[in-house]
Amino acid sequence: MVIVMRPEASENDVEHVVELVREMGLKEHVIVGSDLTVVAVIGDDRKKEKTKLEQAPNVDRVVPILAPYKMAAKESKAERTRVPINDTCVIGGEAVHVMAGPCSVESEEQIMDAARRCKAAGATALRGGAFKPRTNPYSFQGLGEDGLKLLAAAREETGLAVVTEVLTPTDVDLVARYADCLQVGTRNAQNFKLLEACGQSGKPVLYKRGMSMTISEWLQAAEYILAEGNPNVILCERGIRTFEDHTRNTLSLSVVPEVHYRSHLPIVIDPSQGTGHARLVPDMCKASVAAGADGLIIEVHPDPEHAMTDGGQSITPDALTETMQSLRRVAEAVDRVLGGSDVMDTASV
Amino acid sequence: MVIVMRPEASENDVEHVVELVREMGLKEHVIVGSDLTVVAVIGDDRKKEKTKLEQAPNVDRVVPILAPYKMAAKESKAERTRVPINDTCVIGGEAVHVMAGPCSVESEEQIMDAARRCKAAGATALRGGAFKPRTNPYSFQGLGEDGLKLLAAAREETGLAVVTEVLTPTDVDLVARYADCLQVGTRNAQNFKLLEACGQSGKPVLYKRGMSMTISEWLQAAEYILAEGNPNVILCERGIRTFEDHTRNTLSLSVVPEVHYRSHLPIVIDPSQGTGHARLVPDMCKASVAAGADGLIIEVHPDPEHAMTDGGQSITPDALTETMQSLRRVAEAVDRVLGGSDVMDTASV
Amino acid sequence: MVIVMRPEASENDVEHVVELVREMGLKEHVIVGSDLTVVAVIGDDRKKEKTKLEQAPNVDRVVPILAPYKMAAKESKAERTRVPINDTCVIGGEAVHVMAGPCSVESEEQIMDAARRCKAAGATALRGGAFKPRTNPYSFQGLGEDGLKLLAAAREETGLAVVTEVLTPTDVDLVARYADCLQVGTRNAQNFKLLEACGQSGKPVLYKRGMSMTISEWLQAAEYILAEGNPNVILCERGIRTFEDHTRNTLSLSVVPEVHYRSHLPIVIDPSQGTGHARLVPDMCKASVAAGADGLIIEVHPDPEHAMTDGGQSITPDALTETMQSLRRVAEAVDRVLGGSDVMDTASV
Amino acid sequence: MVIVMRPEASENDVEHVVELVREMGLKEHVIVGSDLTVVAVIGDDRKKEKTKLEQAPNVDRVVPILAPYKMAAKESKAERTRVPINDTCVIGGEAVHVMAGPCSVESEEQIMDAARRCKAAGATALRGGAFKPRTNPYSFQGLGEDGLKLLAAAREETGLAVVTEVLTPTDVDLVARYADCLQVGTRNAQNFKLLEACGQSGKPVLYKRGMSMTISEWLQAAEYILAEGNPNVILCERGIRTFEDHTRNTLSLSVVPEVHYRSHLPIVIDPSQGTGHARLVPDMCKASVAAGADGLIIEVHPDPEHAMTDGGQSITPDALTETMQSLRRVAEAVDRVLGGSDVMDTASV
Repeated sequence: MVIVMRPEASENDVEHVVELVREMGLKEHVIVGSDLTVVAVIGDDRKKEKTKLEQAPNVDRVVPILAPYKMAAKESKAERTRVPINDTCVIGGEAVHVMAGPCSVESEEQIMDAARRCKAAGATALRGGAFKPRTNPYSFQGLGEDGLKLLAAAREETGLAVVTEVLTPTDVDLVARYADCLQVGTRNAQNFKLLEACGQSGKPVLYKRGMSMTISEWLQAAEYILAEGNPNVILCERGIRTFEDHTRNTLSLSVVPEVHYRSHLPIVIDPSQGTGHARLVPDMCKASVAAGADGLIIEVHPDPEHAMTDGGQSITPDALTETMQSLRRVAEAVDRVLGGSDVMDTASV
Repeated sequence: MVIVMRPEASENDVEHVVELVREMGLKEHVIVGSDLTVVAVIGDDRKKEKTKLEQAPNVDRVVPILAPYKMAAKESKAERTRVPINDTCVIGGEAVHVMAGPCSVESEEQIMDAARRCKAAGATALRGGAFKPRTNPYSFQGLGEDGLKLLAAAREETGLAVVTEVLTPTDVDLVARYADCLQVGTRNAQNFKLLEACGQSGKPVLYKRGMSMTISEWLQAAEYILAEGNPNVILCERGIRTFEDHTRNTLSLSVVPEVHYRSHLPIVIDPSQGTGHARLVPDMCKASVAAGADGLIIEVHPDPEHAMTDGGQSITPDALTETMQSLRRVAEAVDRVLGGSDVMDTASV
Repeated sequence: MVIVMRPEASENDVEHVVELVREMGLKEHVIVGSDLTVVAVIGDDRKKEKTKLEQAPNVDRVVPILAPYKMAAKESKAERTRVPINDTCVIGGEAVHVMAGPCSVESEEQIMDAARRCKAAGATALRGGAFKPRTNPYSFQGLGEDGLKLLAAAREETGLAVVTEVLTPTDVDLVARYADCLQVGTRNAQNFKLLEACGQSGKPVLYKRGMSMTISEWLQAAEYILAEGNPNVILCERGIRTFEDHTRNTLSLSVVPEVHYRSHLPIVIDPSQGTGHARLVPDMCKASVAAGADGLIIEVHPDPEHAMTDGGQSITPDALTETMQSLRRVAEAVDRVLGGSDVMDTASV
Repeated sequence: MVIVMRPEASENDVEHVVELVREMGLKEHVIVGSDLTVVAVIGDDRKKEKTKLEQAPNVDRVVPILAPYKMAAKESKAERTRVPINDTCVIGGEAVHVMAGPCSVESEEQIMDAARRCKAAGATALRGGAFKPRTNPYSFQGLGEDGLKLLAAAREETGLAVVTEVLTPTDVDLVARYADCLQVGTRNAQNFKLLEACGQSGKPVLYKRGMSMTISEWLQAAEYILAEGNPNVILCERGIRTFEDHTRNTLSLSVVPEVHYRSHLPIVIDPSQGTGHARLVPDMCKASVAAGADGLIIEVHPDPEHAMTDGGQSITPDALTETMQSLRRVAEAVDRVLGGSDVMDTASV
């Protein structure tokens, strides 16, 4: 960190800061500039409370220098992390995978129909919520364990990997019994107890960015999973909260190259949550792949007009099929391939 | 809700929307305007999935009309809710209460010292974290149950009510055994399982706004607590995430009159989290009370330069004493009184 | 618009609102719902002051229904607008054009070198600022008319169209004498006097979104240009102000399909301003084209380490050449072509 | 500034950065830390382009240390600036002044009525727009010079100082002939040509913060006025653009103590623009004064239901009178007085 003194700071003030720095087990380097003095601090201050130094007399502010995350940082691992959800769906390699399916599991018919058609379109994983975090307490909250069973049945038939959300630490074991990949949603992105529990499960975790988290905060929170010895973290951008009102969230695609610059973890994009409108989803899928995303998670409903949740942002299976055809070309244009291409070719015969 | 059709919508398109509305058990009112047609929907659509209607051909958008919360709405309750934390500290009446104390319970000496001095300054409740949700996994996470015991001991001596955070549903019973009021933090503001558990506890809940929640979302989430039969909800504004960089968050004080306009629930302000800098706290305390807040929750540390958490935003006990003197005058200027004034007069003798 | 009454509104209150609506020359449609009454207003209220109705007793809020822009709306024009900057560079057709060049014109050598190399890489227009709006008054403000002359000289040699910024109405004529396309920057996006002057010039206008404008506000402001009889408006997204700190702005690519949904105007993307970091620019270029953008405007400097302005976000001519090769493939993947491909093929021989 | 190297930076990389720093006429101080190296730069780099250094190999980022403004900084001037608008209305002293009046000047009757009643309520300045920057080109744009004449007539009768907006450099002289104080609105906050023209006029300038400007950007832009030799700058916070939807803007009151901490310039608050709803204005007025604001600018209309602009946020003269009575008490509670108190006492007799 660098501690910036106020212009009016005295030598005593600087001396006092130096003492505080040494008390913290760190070393200092005092630099007297033309307008003011700064104290550069040497040593690993990641685990230290730094803001308290702002309370010392005539300290203007404290500027952190070291990235506050370690295991998620690129420096800690030479090669990119690949997270295998099942044999086919490995996130983080050359192949870009598409996870698709309804927002919620609503019924056997609905989820089986969705699964078959997502599979036929080329998806390699099935998404679908059994436990739903709903803004409104009176909204449909999901089928619970019955929903998980239906997802497992759909996997049985289609071979798709199953990705589904878990809401609370005590449900992690239950969800992990049925799912191939645990999903942590944006509203739980800083529910650290849940992250720890997911870490302990050892399962792959699709970890969505909180809608107002910076990348640094996101990577720090990902360490709650990594620190439990679970390396299988897939980051997922799903849009952030901004003043924009034409979308439910603002999908910030620059996080794709930035995460690849800062971290070894793979990143996928959720253009459904990221826009909130089905009409915008196909173009945002293409943009995501062109930006270098390692995968997509897309809401697909056989009958969006009658969806029980998030109907407005679900595309139809036909729209998915058409989008996948474009995505294949976009992936190739950026020297990637679409995951499960062979599977799909067989399936669509 | 009102369903706005695209200008090019045909009669068939409108007819189809009308059918969908009727399927939902609602009635419609078609209004053919100069430029486009809207379908106004009559009936209680709060529990209905509405966005799916955007998928019908040539629907431009769906505009909700009814507030999506019920029990938190002013209409549901004639008088303002008063939440008694203990005999002295009742939030939501004429008196404006100050809850003060350190960010974290660090040691017996620290919390007892803080408690005595906050009491002497006129606070009626003691805040202090035993379970801390830390952005960084390597930061101090709190003393856990030992911290709760220290808080209870401080209450024993000072008579201050104890407010402390709970992070996960399974800890609610434990925390409720020691605390007078459960705190739900901003990172758990949409951890609905936790809200339900707090609701079931029957204890007063200081419920902080998520840093990117709208007021409507906040009141909806508060219903997770209310719907469990627990009316003792205290809303707490602690700043929102914006582009501003001179503060940790942007403290949005207009929520005070707006919450009073929309809801019967009391609202308190956290100017410490809301600014992140001790130097800004006193003025924001005064502004909060002038805006009509029902209380304040302020981070106070006997030795901020050595605080284990959030040192930068903690004021000293002396600064609290001085601030309280101003607050008493500001409260009177807006026809309120400061809570526990008599207690304090005794204490300060 | 729809006027939503408070639940406690009386018949008199509704009657009063109806009178106000009629005074405005509009008609009303009163709808008594289960929980409250709404007054739907029929007629073109685009030019009416609507918020004043919130002052009538027991009005809760006013919800606009009609889009507030007319000439920019898709409904007003059957086909997409094409804006010819010169013979080669026509924005809004099948071809995706790249405008490239330095942030500022710094010297003859710099601009000629940049122009030649951008041309060789396949750009069809040269960007470069002669009048710079600088946040800091002590920063380099541009070469003024001398810069315009250098741009014209670079056009003379390379055939590239010239795009350059104008800051104030009185400079419009001067800039229009040298430039093929006037640029209005984000800080002037609601400088309506400047928009009017650009409209009167008849020149193509590259009109950047204000960094905190909604799409609706942007299209409304574009009408200041259109309303002067100048149809040659090119919208340009350059990132918005959000809480994100890994980029200078948040590049919101969903505006591309949304603008194409709402308007007939073409839209280009500025990934340089939109990210602020050269390392993110190439991927964001690809994402923009995949999202359906009609063009790109990219900061390119022969020697970014010594750029006089915005060095951090300028890519090198070599990086541009490499990016263009990818862009060609991405454009094809979404059924577009890169503008000026033939020209470039010749040039690169 | 501090230049942070990537962990993998070589000695050569550091050496190269050092050379670039020296080329800029600055000195360096290389600090080799435990995880990475930083280059601390000594010397006044305010006028230097710094981001270009991010282009040097293995530079991670550049962190500015010096505040980029000089004349607006507290360090440059020992005492707080007082801006005299007229004999009575001096902003920045002990007295808190209220500027009140309609959003737009609509007619002689309206402005004279408004002026008389604002005066009677205790305001010391009259606000009112003659040139209106309207989001929508079809909205009422103000009466122009006729409006200025009406404002001058209102001053003649009431003695109130006149504050009114100017939109473009060529209008500065005209507006300055009639007004006591020029207002620069949020949409022109980075219209640097306009700021320069206002600076040259020598008139007091009420300079509103851009709706997405940081405090640092705001103070930098204020220097465009100061650098012309005009010290009479009054900063005005009017709310920022955030995700909040219960208000038109988010009124960020922490800027009051922060501006007083960073600068010698006075700051006033516009709670009308800052909220957009008349019902929130009185409480936000009180909060502003309690936060330490040097004044308020409030939209007041004799008949808000028929206002031509911004009707929803204008309070009535009666509401102003009532608010002023509270404000007087709040001002006293924070050791200030309300400006023009004696005048008002006479007027209200």
